[in-house]
Amino acid sequence: MNGAQRLIRTLVDCDVTVCFSNPGTSEMHFVAALDEVPEMRAILGLFEGVVTGAADGYGRMTGRPAATLLHLGPGLGNGIANLHNARRARTPIVNVVGDHASYHLVNDPPLAADIESLARPVSGWYRSSSSPGALVADTVDAVAAACGPPGAVATLVVPADVSWSDAAGGPVPPRPTREPRTVADEVVADAAKALRSGEPAVVLIGGSATRRRGLTAASRVVNATGAKLLCETFPASLERGAGLPPVERLGYLAEFALAQLAGARHLVLVDTPAPVSFFAYPNIPGYLVPEGCQVHVLAEAGSGEDAAGALEALADILGAAADGATLQGAERPERPTGALTAAAAGTAIGALLPDGAIVSDEANTSSIFIPGATAGGPVHDWLCLTGGAIGQGMPVATGAAVACPDRKVLSLEADGSAMYTLQSLWTQAREGLDVTTVVFNNGSYAILEMELSRVGAGAPGPLAHGMLDIARPDLDFAALARGMGVPATRATTAEEFTVALERALGQEGPVLIDAVLARS
Amino acid sequence: MNGAQRLIRTLVDCDVTVCFSNPGTSEMHFVAALDEVPEMRAILGLFEGVVTGAADGYGRMTGRPAATLLHLGPGLGNGIANLHNARRARTPIVNVVGDHASYHLVNDPPLAADIESLARPVSGWYRSSSSPGALVADTVDAVAAACGPPGAVATLVVPADVSWSDAAGGPVPPRPTREPRTVADEVVADAAKALRSGEPAVVLIGGSATRRRGLTAASRVVNATGAKLLCETFPASLERGAGLPPVERLGYLAEFALAQLAGARHLVLVDTPAPVSFFAYPNIPGYLVPEGCQVHVLAEAGSGEDAAGALEALADILGAAADGATLQGAERPERPTGALTAAAAGTAIGALLPDGAIVSDEANTSSIFIPGATAGGPVHDWLCLTGGAIGQGMPVATGAAVACPDRKVLSLEADGSAMYTLQSLWTQAREGLDVTTVVFNNGSYAILEMELSRVGAGAPGPLAHGMLDIARPDLDFAALARGMGVPATRATTAEEFTVALERALGQEGPVLIDAVLARS
Repeated sequence: MNGAQRLIRTLVDCDVTVCFSNPGTSEMHFVAALDEVPEMRAILGLFEGVVTGAADGYGRMTGRPAATLLHLGPGLGNGIANLHNARRARTPIVNVVGDHASYHLVNDPPLAADIESLARPVSGWYRSSSSPGALVADTVDAVAAACGPPGAVATLVVPADVSWSDAAGGPVPPRPTREPRTVADEVVADAAKALRSGEPAVVLIGGSATRRRGLTAASRVVNATGAKLLCETFPASLERGAGLPPVERLGYLAEFALAQLAGARHLVLVDTPAPVSFFAYPNIPGYLVPEGCQVHVLAEAGSGEDAAGALEALADILGAAADGATLQGAERPERPTGALTAAAAGTAIGALLPDGAIVSDEANTSSIFIPGATAGGPVHDWLCLTGGAIGQGMPVATGAAVACPDRKVLSLEADGSAMYTLQSLWTQAREGLDVTTVVFNNGSYAILEMELSRVGAGAPGPLAHGMLDIARPDLDFAALARGMGVPATRATTAEEFTVALERALGQEGPVLIDAVLARS
Repeated sequence: MNGAQRLIRTLVDCDVTVCFSNPGTSEMHFVAALDEVPEMRAILGLFEGVVTGAADGYGRMTGRPAATLLHLGPGLGNGIANLHNARRARTPIVNVVGDHASYHLVNDPPLAADIESLARPVSGWYRSSSSPGALVADTVDAVAAACGPPGAVATLVVPADVSWSDAAGGPVPPRPTREPRTVADEVVADAAKALRSGEPAVVLIGGSATRRRGLTAASRVVNATGAKLLCETFPASLERGAGLPPVERLGYLAEFALAQLAGARHLVLVDTPAPVSFFAYPNIPGYLVPEGCQVHVLAEAGSGEDAAGALEALADILGAAADGATLQGAERPERPTGALTAAAAGTAIGALLPDGAIVSDEANTSSIFIPGATAGGPVHDWLCLTGGAIGQGMPVATGAAVACPDRKVLSLEADGSAMYTLQSLWTQAREGLDVTTVVFNNGSYAILEMELSRVGAGAPGPLAHGMLDIARPDLDFAALARGMGVPATRATTAEEFTVALERALGQEGPVLIDAVLARS
């Protein structure tokens, strides 16, 4: 058994059974080994950003890592943006990067680059496997580092000669499993004291606390104390819908977030950092905790602490009733009519969202109305742009669909963002993934138009506006989708959009709807 | 004048007048400043790989840097693969990366990443501008570092608060210009002695020696001495065609290169490193200089030495006649008929290549026949995949077309490679660039199929082959091009292809031909 076969075998033994791949020559032994270990499902992406984003979506939905397979430094480079998002989401990923044969690096062949320097900024764990004999241990360590908790991007570099050399076996050490650490009693007591103080308080949840258990406990806590419940701006995976406690997300714009937090004297953080502005602006604070507000860390962000357990302990200490959580009632909007605006599209999505849907949300400015319209819909998961690096939504949708083949994935995309990793559609077609993609086609980097007016850069002229105008020429996403084997339609009215969405959601397999929004 | 305006003004004063851009919020002041300095032409790319590759193409054709504009670490990440290629091509680029406001970094906002760690592997020069007062000097230094010689990627990081703060002016220091350094007489004499020894010798040229002056002198040298003339495998820009000295390129496959170099006792290197294999393979040497062959460095690779001048000095010392260069005669193949094979497509290109064309060659396996078919065509430039990171060809074609608006650009693309930076087509349509793109659609990562059989990985099974098969589903490049506003046709026979190519070359503006090759 050579190193490549041993690597794949070990991954499978560690329950890593999906590998999103974009290989090159230095990974050919890995590719050849796939037939030897058929338990590994290799899924091809035509671009590395698809590969790394799909691994992110898969890991968010399963809690287990997928592997990637990337080609040397430049291939890793193409995957960095979505690894950045995965790092911010604390998604477990085993990021396998092939390298030149170790003895060939001294020759500085054309594709050689400093892989470690490229990988470190996005990797919680990094190792280059030094020999075939170390490969099993290296792989097990990578899986353990990826799994955490917290989840992490574990980058394992595999030189070609390690792949092709004989790699003697031996038993695979059991994968070390770490349980989330219980939060200390005094930490819970401190939060309880703050919430009992009678002073205005906010409980801000994120990370692992945005699933049913954490939401339920958090809702009990605020109902028992009068505190305000908020969720971080871009949670990795938020469970929501009828029967679950609803939670308001902290605003993306600093002004909104400041208003939401205004007057708070206590801020209880649960697996999320103290809120900061996405960007700095002249004369607006970047650190959003109000002056005079005391911060209490119930569960440290990304620490692997048991955030939901801590919230439950806190609710119990506070004497909150076991059934004291507020639960969202079932309600859906009517189907929209008239002009196809972002609001109308959101209404249609609210009217039609399927039970158990997974929503990958990268609709940016067009997404403003959708959370409200879907709040009372059937239970679903909402996956956000955790790291702010656009081009995440369609790959994440792809990986989520691989992870959950029995659930409908709804991929909500801004037109600008869609163009970064559009190749996702091809993988969706190839694998027959059940993804309905809606592209909100407004012909603009609309979020930048908004930012341009906010950064205090004066009245922008035509050249500035031109940089944010992506309607010259018009992007025809239906044509682009068909070019990659995904059936597609264009919708230009609310009625057309609703019909197209209902049809897409009622069938299996990938579909794209180019939602051409009414332009003002 | 704020920092962003000062930055653009200084770039323009340094003769950097094109900026390939994909901005985000932290770059909004730069965008807003465009109307203040209209001498800067900002060209939007929908993906950063387009931006960096276009800057590479522009720099290769003009010898002057374009600027880029990238958004933070993840935006830089998306541009790394083509910056890697540019680094290998020694292309001058001023790589401008926006960063968060300096005081905001302590807040670790979602998009924060270690930009320096990401940038260093692809940058010959790196600096983060520390204050508005330093910006003019930083910009001038960046331009000087980019220009060299040798050319380099100079990465200038501009924090948002440096962009938006008042940046007092003062005169722009004159851009330091460096002339190529003259090679020492004794170095020339050493090469002359080797070539006069009567032992088998090879002159291997690359870098700045692949233009008319260097080629002419190199041809005189080998004609006077009986040495063999070769060119590096992937020159950044090779001048060729009728009336120019022809030169054989070193083979991509190590076996071929070894055969070309076999028996040499002296190897004279001219602005190119000693030849090494692109990849290592079990039982094939990675360093390709034959045993017992003495290496003579006439001009060190990437040193900024005057390689063409050194070759001329060498030719003169050797007593080569001033008109002693071999010149390629004019000849063109007949138009092809029958099945559309890679060879037939190459023949059609040879039959129709326009005078003064710029060929961006990323056709990989499909490119094998094209150099031969075009050797006797009108004078043209051939731009290669210098760093091996695919996804370079279409962006380079885009930048070359911006650089040389009066010349036809022929962009030759493999189907797999095309899918990395296909967004280039949109920029070509938006800017009305005169680029004819041919996609060689064979439905396969054909080069990897070849490599898979070469790396000694045994007989690959169906899962392995599946990873290299990109025809499930079929990619319809004509639909993809139309979706981005580029007129396109599909060709399935040699006749159809020839007609489509003739029509495309006879008109102005971007066109794509999806050349569906006969599949065996």
